[in-house]
Amino acid sequence: MNNAGLEFQDLTRLVMPQSIVLVGASDKPNSIGARTLENLTTYSDWGGQLTLVHPTRREIAGRACHASVRDLDQAPDVAIVAVPADAAVETLRDCGARGVRFAIVFTSGFGEMGEAGHAAEAQMREIVARTGMRIYGPNCPGLNNINGKLGMSFSPAYRFDRMPGPIGVATQGGGLGRAFMQSAMARGVGTGLWCSGGNEVDLEVSDYIHCMADAPDIRVIYTVLEGVRNGPRFMAAAMHAARRGKPIVAIKVGKSDYGVKAAASHTAAITGSAEINAAVYRELGIVEVDDIDEAVDAATLLARGQPTGREKIAVYCFSGGTGALTSDRIGVAGLTMSELAPATVAELKRWLPPYVPVGNPVDVTAEVLVRSDITSGTLKATADDPNTDLVVLPIPVDYGQATTLMAQSAVEVQAGVQTPIVPIWISDRIGEGHGIMVQGGLAPMRSVRNAVTAIRRFTEHGRWRSTLDPAWRPLGAARAAQETTTFTEAAAKRVLQQAGVGTPQGIVARTAEDAAHAWRRLGAGKVAMKVVSSRITHKTDVGGVRLGIASEAEARAAFDGICARVCDAHHPSVIEGVLVEAMLDEPFVEAVVGIHRDAVFGHVCTFGLGGVGVELFKDVSRRLLPLTPASARAMVQETRCHALLAGHRGQAGYDIDALVQALVRLSDFVAKNAGVVEELEINPLAVRPRGQGVAALDAVLTCNAKETLTW
Amino acid sequence: MNNAGLEFQDLTRLVMPQSIVLVGASDKPNSIGARTLENLTTYSDWGGQLTLVHPTRREIAGRACHASVRDLDQAPDVAIVAVPADAAVETLRDCGARGVRFAIVFTSGFGEMGEAGHAAEAQMREIVARTGMRIYGPNCPGLNNINGKLGMSFSPAYRFDRMPGPIGVATQGGGLGRAFMQSAMARGVGTGLWCSGGNEVDLEVSDYIHCMADAPDIRVIYTVLEGVRNGPRFMAAAMHAARRGKPIVAIKVGKSDYGVKAAASHTAAITGSAEINAAVYRELGIVEVDDIDEAVDAATLLARGQPTGREKIAVYCFSGGTGALTSDRIGVAGLTMSELAPATVAELKRWLPPYVPVGNPVDVTAEVLVRSDITSGTLKATADDPNTDLVVLPIPVDYGQATTLMAQSAVEVQAGVQTPIVPIWISDRIGEGHGIMVQGGLAPMRSVRNAVTAIRRFTEHGRWRSTLDPAWRPLGAARAAQETTTFTEAAAKRVLQQAGVGTPQGIVARTAEDAAHAWRRLGAGKVAMKVVSSRITHKTDVGGVRLGIASEAEARAAFDGICARVCDAHHPSVIEGVLVEAMLDEPFVEAVVGIHRDAVFGHVCTFGLGGVGVELFKDVSRRLLPLTPASARAMVQETRCHALLAGHRGQAGYDIDALVQALVRLSDFVAKNAGVVEELEINPLAVRPRGQGVAALDAVLTCNAKETLTW
Repeated sequence: MNNAGLEFQDLTRLVMPQSIVLVGASDKPNSIGARTLENLTTYSDWGGQLTLVHPTRREIAGRACHASVRDLDQAPDVAIVAVPADAAVETLRDCGARGVRFAIVFTSGFGEMGEAGHAAEAQMREIVARTGMRIYGPNCPGLNNINGKLGMSFSPAYRFDRMPGPIGVATQGGGLGRAFMQSAMARGVGTGLWCSGGNEVDLEVSDYIHCMADAPDIRVIYTVLEGVRNGPRFMAAAMHAARRGKPIVAIKVGKSDYGVKAAASHTAAITGSAEINAAVYRELGIVEVDDIDEAVDAATLLARGQPTGREKIAVYCFSGGTGALTSDRIGVAGLTMSELAPATVAELKRWLPPYVPVGNPVDVTAEVLVRSDITSGTLKATADDPNTDLVVLPIPVDYGQATTLMAQSAVEVQAGVQTPIVPIWISDRIGEGHGIMVQGGLAPMRSVRNAVTAIRRFTEHGRWRSTLDPAWRPLGAARAAQETTTFTEAAAKRVLQQAGVGTPQGIVARTAEDAAHAWRRLGAGKVAMKVVSSRITHKTDVGGVRLGIASEAEARAAFDGICARVCDAHHPSVIEGVLVEAMLDEPFVEAVVGIHRDAVFGHVCTFGLGGVGVELFKDVSRRLLPLTPASARAMVQETRCHALLAGHRGQAGYDIDALVQALVRLSDFVAKNAGVVEELEINPLAVRPRGQGVAALDAVLTCNAKETLTW
Repeated sequence: MNNAGLEFQDLTRLVMPQSIVLVGASDKPNSIGARTLENLTTYSDWGGQLTLVHPTRREIAGRACHASVRDLDQAPDVAIVAVPADAAVETLRDCGARGVRFAIVFTSGFGEMGEAGHAAEAQMREIVARTGMRIYGPNCPGLNNINGKLGMSFSPAYRFDRMPGPIGVATQGGGLGRAFMQSAMARGVGTGLWCSGGNEVDLEVSDYIHCMADAPDIRVIYTVLEGVRNGPRFMAAAMHAARRGKPIVAIKVGKSDYGVKAAASHTAAITGSAEINAAVYRELGIVEVDDIDEAVDAATLLARGQPTGREKIAVYCFSGGTGALTSDRIGVAGLTMSELAPATVAELKRWLPPYVPVGNPVDVTAEVLVRSDITSGTLKATADDPNTDLVVLPIPVDYGQATTLMAQSAVEVQAGVQTPIVPIWISDRIGEGHGIMVQGGLAPMRSVRNAVTAIRRFTEHGRWRSTLDPAWRPLGAARAAQETTTFTEAAAKRVLQQAGVGTPQGIVARTAEDAAHAWRRLGAGKVAMKVVSSRITHKTDVGGVRLGIASEAEARAAFDGICARVCDAHHPSVIEGVLVEAMLDEPFVEAVVGIHRDAVFGHVCTFGLGGVGVELFKDVSRRLLPLTPASARAMVQETRCHALLAGHRGQAGYDIDALVQALVRLSDFVAKNAGVVEELEINPLAVRPRGQGVAALDAVLTCNAKETLTW
């Protein structure tokens, strides 16, 4: 990846400054200035130097006030800007001039308001460029360093949400950040650092992710993807987190038209294509979730341990129906239940009455639930089982005292074993047992579906980690071309040959006699004939294609026929010739391979099998460039049509090795020409029987008109 | 449907008896007998006559005791049987002899324990058959008539779960029933009646559903489908509920192997095929959900109003991110956001500051949230909007007092409008506002996903209701054949012709000369030749098929070739002849139509388009027989491959009308021969261009060997 613009500044002095100036301090109750001051003092435990600025007041809440940032003796690490919109740019100019490192701008009324706001934001960016001061905001709710006990926030909710913990939260807006944080805290898992950068005129979510990846006290990062402004920086930050072993859990907003519209009006960022986004996030190991509770589920589970991708699960229950439901959903999710070791079965039998059958799910029955010694003994035996990596404990109802005792047992057992015990508090009635499990660090989930989904994501993340190539870097986005040119099929195929991808033998004929000659030279078998013209994209529609030509006479006639039909719709000068091409022997399978430049993330390769599979069932896989042999093979394998290639219903298989090689060669070619190639589509790419290779039967190549291809 | 066994007894005296005898009463603390007595007296408010039976005690808790049911002066409506397992059958015999109408049997240790238990259950069924007394249980947690203030239950939890309400709960086991009930009550929606029939030796879930469908105080029925014992009775009960306008919300357990196994060991019932089950439930209008919280969501929403299927939704929020997320998920679910009427927009603008853009989602911003007059005014304007049928109110965090005020506003506004307001309390921190909304009847949901899913199901149920044909009855299950016979292709095609379904013209040849003659008689075009043998099912595999035969000589050679190849693997006597059949002109699309007898629900029709669509993508639709023209058309339309039939990518369409007609004719034929036809598969059924009809190119028909087809 081109490294221009991919630097990440050290944000240590932003998240834990040694000195802060609050511009717009106030003591007016419930004002932004007053609440911020209160959060910085009463509700923080921070040893740095706090200075206040107010245009007219000389003292606020017993602290001296300066009239302007310009008057400060020393340049503070952070300026918190809580001034009216019309004073913000001037204040930032003063901050930049005074050498402030970071400005946190609460003030709203900029980009989110339209044109005038955009102009002010441009001025802010100009201040950043000129002075090197970095801006966090504007229109942001502040920065909460909870592990550092420092709240740089005007929110009246800050004081209630101060449970330290292993999660970093990086968002643009406030609502979805605080919603996550509050729920996770209610489950006993705190957020160590919350960065919420609002309109992001300068610093953005990617910067906070990068910073959290380096923070030793953060184990999991949560973010909301409402729109990625700078794809390459986002990818670089995500890969940095991946290499540091910090999973990113993300909610994507903008999967439907309503969401795209609402997110655009809300954050003024491009949401991009949901399909491309989902593919990119998956490739970067981002755990994409659909809702806030699912984010809490995934993040709290990932904070409890590192997944391997091979997790085997035991269900421990005291209601047969709930155990069956949980086991059922584990199966539907494609997860694996553990087979209890004989010693575990023996130990369970020791505790349980003889009439209780022992297996997985471990159903100790409701009668046993009231005996807390049996609960402890059997739950411990289950969690100690050598074949079990994770114990799910669904609790369908609050039975009062019995449930309380069960919760205590679960906390005690967990204290003695590594295997995570994941309780599910299914009922909407939140009883005492729930609080005990929250206090005990068991972070109870809210439904069987939520728990199973979280465990599936946990396991899938482990599998992704096990295949992570830390050296791999996405190609990144080159600038889109101002002007493009589309190659003729014949020219595109010459490029493919250069790139090492097979095509049928072909000759461009200029005359009918040429065509007859070409037919002979191609072996006198069946040929296809197609008009060559850089002006015609849909050759069939204008009568520019003839198939199955099997003699010299037919070749001559086809040449004349094509020219005549094309001239019905076009001036004769558009015809550059007719491509005469040997037709491939059946059988083969038709694949579609496309590489296009995504505006946000750069070149993406799409693979699918032709016809119905791609068009009706959207059975395609996608990868960022560059492909590796392993990733290209995975692309092919993860389509459902892979069964056709591998040898469906007893048929012999097709040449998957050659297909994988072709994908990698196409990727290498585009990677070398990232500034040139806008789009390359091979449709169809014939995949022939095993050992016989692949051949591009048609190809469209669109390039930047101002650049030339290199090899 | 055959009505044998489909009678439903009036259960009024079971759910609200005038007299009860408790057999196995006790005053030993925490014993089943003592808890039941307590539930019947202290925690019930019931005016009937209670009698106690105990083998040795003459008085318990101040009430007189009889030694045996035989000693009772009058026959009570209900006997509650809470005796040890070894005394249960004897007690039931006494009850039956004494004329008890219904026995509720708590006692466990029967079918769930294996062989010996099964024998005892058979004796119980014999008592039912002999005396007419109906049995509820054994191994059941009791029957809670909460609206009737009568708890016939030994559960210590009964006393805590007594909120009356509009929901009926019909389950086998206890856990998933109480889990639902407790959660719904915690959201302010009570369960009027809970029947939980345990091992179901006699009465079963279908009986309770039928009873609840007739109960005026029950509006929605919740059930758990762990296994349907008697498909026709279940379908009859469900259709009865449908005709009474009572939606059934159901959780299915047994969608994966783990679940099938766990449910089987738990309930000893057959779970059946998940695909067939899902199709049947959908056709019966059952709202199938995946988890307990989703059941509570769907049931509480359906209890609030009747859906039309055309619901348009407004999102009201005060966090841009949450509004965008909610709108996004509404779009992903295929639901429709409302376009606010101009008067609504004007009213919203009257309340909101000028900088707030007005649209749907209605985002009043967090600043406005603190002004409860604005919240009330804008929420009322949104709910009053003439284009809006439902308002979703996502609440991402508990902001304490502000959220409390907002909740009060929501309850007040709801009191004045019909349009349901559906709040979503997203946070795990349950604040005061949550309780206010619960008290106010707003039944807050737990996540954006949950709410959107529930609204989608609500709307889909409305759409289903709008197409309900109250006269339609499923064909039901005839007995499976002991011995079956499979027709040859030629014979099966003659049956199809009789049924009014087109096949290619064909002649069975006995000699090579016959074949040449047939070729001429079929028009001397291209023919297919296929071995006729009732012993060979895979004709191609044994070399029994030749295609594209285009001359007399080829026909003769093909006849001899087929005979020779088939004789490589079989004795010549298996060859009954060779079917010579005119080949259809292209183009046509290949469909697959199958009708098979499902062991639980009877004959089901499966439709899909051939090849990849059916095999790799499982793109099929299913319907119970009999099909109607409308249901057959819907079957065709709901496959994704429908696009191919309708005219994919500018191609002309195929003969959907003829396809629909063929489906209905096949259904009519099987309906007339429900006791004969085991399975009928047409693969492929060629669907020709519009106006040209359909033709069965191959067919397999398997019938009961002991029965004959009628027309």
